[in-house]
Amino acid sequence: MVSEIIAIGSELLTPQRVDTNSLYLTEQLNALGVEVVTKSVIGDDRDRLADAVRRAVSRSGLVILTGGLGPTEDDVTREAVAAALDRGQKYHSEIADQIEQRFRQMGRKMAEINRRQAFIIEGAAILPNDRGTAPGQWIEESDHVVVLLPGPPNELKAMFLRQCLPRLARIVPKQVIQSIVMRVAGMPESDLDQLISPVYKKYENPVTTILAAAGDIQVHLRAQCATEGDAQALLAEVAGPIELLLGDRIYSRNGDPLEATVGEMLRKQASTLAVAESCTGGLLAERITSVPGSSDYFGGGFVTYTRRMKTELLGVSEQLLEERGAVSAETAEAMAAGARRRTSATYALAITGIAGPGTGGENAPVGLVYTAVADAAGCRVAHRQFLGDRQRIRQFSVQMAMDLLRRRIAGL
Amino acid sequence: MVSEIIAIGSELLTPQRVDTNSLYLTEQLNALGVEVVTKSVIGDDRDRLADAVRRAVSRSGLVILTGGLGPTEDDVTREAVAAALDRGQKYHSEIADQIEQRFRQMGRKMAEINRRQAFIIEGAAILPNDRGTAPGQWIEESDHVVVLLPGPPNELKAMFLRQCLPRLARIVPKQVIQSIVMRVAGMPESDLDQLISPVYKKYENPVTTILAAAGDIQVHLRAQCATEGDAQALLAEVAGPIELLLGDRIYSRNGDPLEATVGEMLRKQASTLAVAESCTGGLLAERITSVPGSSDYFGGGFVTYTRRMKTELLGVSEQLLEERGAVSAETAEAMAAGARRRTSATYALAITGIAGPGTGGENAPVGLVYTAVADAAGCRVAHRQFLGDRQRIRQFSVQMAMDLLRRRIAGL
Repeated sequence: MVSEIIAIGSELLTPQRVDTNSLYLTEQLNALGVEVVTKSVIGDDRDRLADAVRRAVSRSGLVILTGGLGPTEDDVTREAVAAALDRGQKYHSEIADQIEQRFRQMGRKMAEINRRQAFIIEGAAILPNDRGTAPGQWIEESDHVVVLLPGPPNELKAMFLRQCLPRLARIVPKQVIQSIVMRVAGMPESDLDQLISPVYKKYENPVTTILAAAGDIQVHLRAQCATEGDAQALLAEVAGPIELLLGDRIYSRNGDPLEATVGEMLRKQASTLAVAESCTGGLLAERITSVPGSSDYFGGGFVTYTRRMKTELLGVSEQLLEERGAVSAETAEAMAAGARRRTSATYALAITGIAGPGTGGENAPVGLVYTAVADAAGCRVAHRQFLGDRQRIRQFSVQMAMDLLRRRIAGL
Repeated sequence: MVSEIIAIGSELLTPQRVDTNSLYLTEQLNALGVEVVTKSVIGDDRDRLADAVRRAVSRSGLVILTGGLGPTEDDVTREAVAAALDRGQKYHSEIADQIEQRFRQMGRKMAEINRRQAFIIEGAAILPNDRGTAPGQWIEESDHVVVLLPGPPNELKAMFLRQCLPRLARIVPKQVIQSIVMRVAGMPESDLDQLISPVYKKYENPVTTILAAAGDIQVHLRAQCATEGDAQALLAEVAGPIELLLGDRIYSRNGDPLEATVGEMLRKQASTLAVAESCTGGLLAERITSVPGSSDYFGGGFVTYTRRMKTELLGVSEQLLEERGAVSAETAEAMAAGARRRTSATYALAITGIAGPGTGGENAPVGLVYTAVADAAGCRVAHRQFLGDRQRIRQFSVQMAMDLLRRRIAGL
C-alpha cells in the first residue's frame, strides 16, 4: 500500500513555513510498512484541493489530508473532499454540542461559526478530537481510504495514534516492526557515524537512521520481519556491537530524553536538584520540568541573567566576578555552590556562558559555556566552545549540563 | 501569474528531511508578485513525476522543478519532463566537455555516467551551473514556462539569481507585494475571526491569513498591486477597521512576538523585570531571554516548583500556602511581591498553576493558572482555565502572564 499526504493552508505556502506534520505521519506510516510516494501543500483553495484529492485517490490507497478543518471560511478541506468524492455533508448536532461544551469549560461562549466544524462527509467515521474542536474524518471506499486530520500538531498526533493506527492496522498487511532508539549526548554526529557505520552499513534490515539535534543524537534501528522473535534477534545482532562502541556515552536505550533519564536517576536515589542559569535563561529548568512528576526531585532554581543577580540571589562574590569574569569556571562553580546552599538540594547544576549574538559585556567569545555540578563531595566543572546561533548555543549548553549531572550521579 | 514548485528526490519523503529550496524560491517569486499555489515532493519515479508535470503545466503559468538532475539512474527529472512535454532530448558534447573539465580541475577523472547530464530537452535554453555539474534548463511554451534547477541549495540559488530572475522579469507583469502582520494575545481564534471576518471577507486583495498558536494569533494581510503606493493604500483600507475592532488586544504590528514587544516597552521606560514561576518551570524566563539584548531589562528570576521553594526563595508564608493553596490568587500575588522584593526590579511577574497531567497534590483542576504582576503601585492578578496537554498549558500560561505585564505597563 502506498500513501500520499496533502497539507492544506495558504500559510504553508509562505517563505517562512514548512509542513512538519508530514514528517511525523511519514515516520508512523513507514513503521507500518506503508510508503509515502508524494507530499503536497495546497493553499486554501477549494477547487484546487478537490482536484488534488481526486488525483491522489486514483493512484494511492491511502490519502491523508492535514489542516483546513477550522471554523472559518478559509477552512476548505471538508468541502473539497466532499466534492472530490462526490458525497454530501451532514450536520451532526452532537458534535456542535461537544464543541459548545468545550468552550463552556473554558468559561467562554462558542462563536456561531464553530458550527461549521460539526459538518461530516456522508459515510465518514468521526474521529474525536480531545485536544481541540475540529473532529477528524475517516472515509473508506473500496480501493482507497481518505483521512482528514486537524492541522495543529498536538491534535493531529493524538488523533493519529488513537484513532488512525488501530484502523490502519486492520487494513494494512501485517508485518512486525520492532525498533530500538539509543540516545547519546556530547558527541558530534560525524564522529558517531564514523564509529558505528562499519557495524550498521552491513545491514539493510534493520534500517539505521541517525538523527542529530544540538548536543543530542538518536540512533534508530528498525527491523521489519515476519515474527517478533526474528525482529528482536536481528536488532540484538546489530545493537550489541553499537552499544559496545558507544559505551557510557549512551544515556538512554528506550528513547527517553536526557531530562527524563536524569530525573529517573535522581528519583531512584531520592536525591533533589536545583539549578542556577545565566545564558540559558530558564531553558535548563524548563527542560527538567517538562517531565511530568519532576516535582519529586526538582525543587526549583535561579535565573541570574546579570552579575548583580548572581551576587544577590546566589552569593557569588563581586570580587570573583571582577577578577575571573561572569563566564568562567570559578563563577560556574560559585553559582552551583550558591544554588545548593540556598535550596539545600542534593545536587545543584549551574550554567554560565555567552549565547550571543553580542558578548553581553563579557570578555569571552560567543559560544563559550561553563557548566558546574555541586554536591556534598564538591564541585565538578566542564566547558565547551559551541558554534551556532543563540537558540542552538542555549540548547547545546543545557544538554551539556544535564550530561555532566548524569555522569556525576552515575560516578563516571 | 501563479506558480508551482515540485521537489524531486526520495530522500525528501523520509521522516527526517524537508524540502527547503521551495522556501527560498517562494520568497523570490513572491517578491516578483508571483504566487506559489502548490508545492509537491515526488520520489525518484519517472512516471509519477511526468504525470505531476503534465498536471502542473495545465494549471499554472510557471512550474519549477528542483533536483533529480544528477548523473545516476535515480535522477529522473530530465526524462520525466521530456515525456510530459512530449519533447525529445539531445546530447550536447560541449556540456560533457565542461563537466569533464570540472573534474579535471579537481584532479579527478569523470565517470562515464556523468555524460547523462549533457542531455538537454529539445528547445530548452541551457542554464549554466558554475557551482556543480548539472546544468539547468528553461523551457518556454506558449502559455507556460517549465524550469529545471539542480537540488543542492547553493547551486540552485546561484542559478536562480543569475539565470532565472532576468528571464522572469521579462515575462512577469511588474507587481509589488506588501504585507502587515498583527499579533493578538489572549483571544480564541474563532472569536477573533468572527469579529474581523466581516471586514476582510470583502477583499480578495489583500489576502488575509489567520495563524493560531497557544494564546497567540497572527493576522497576516498581503496586498499585491502595481505600485507600492497602491499596495500600502489597500493594506491601510483593510488594516484600519481591523485595528479598530481588535483595539488594544493587538500587541504587535510588525510581527514581533510578545516577549519582544514587552521587552521594548521595558527598555523604553528603563524599567526592569524579574519573574517567579511554578508550573511553567522556567519557560517564562526562557521566552523573555530568547530576545537578544534582554539583559538590558531582565535581571533574573526564580523557579519555585515546590511549596518549600516558594517559602524559602520568595518568602511566601507557609500559612498562606496552607490556607489558600499554592494555586491561588493570593499565592500568585505573594510570589510576585517576593520576587520584586528580592531583586529590586520595577516589575515582577509570577505564574502558579497546574500544568498536569496530575494535580501535583494541589486541590485544583488541571489547566487552572494564576498570574500576577507586582510594581510600586501594587499587584494585579488574573486567572484562566486552560485546556490541553502539559506543554500547551505552559505555553498558554506564559502568554497570559506576558500579556498581563504588557497591559500593566501600557496602563490598560
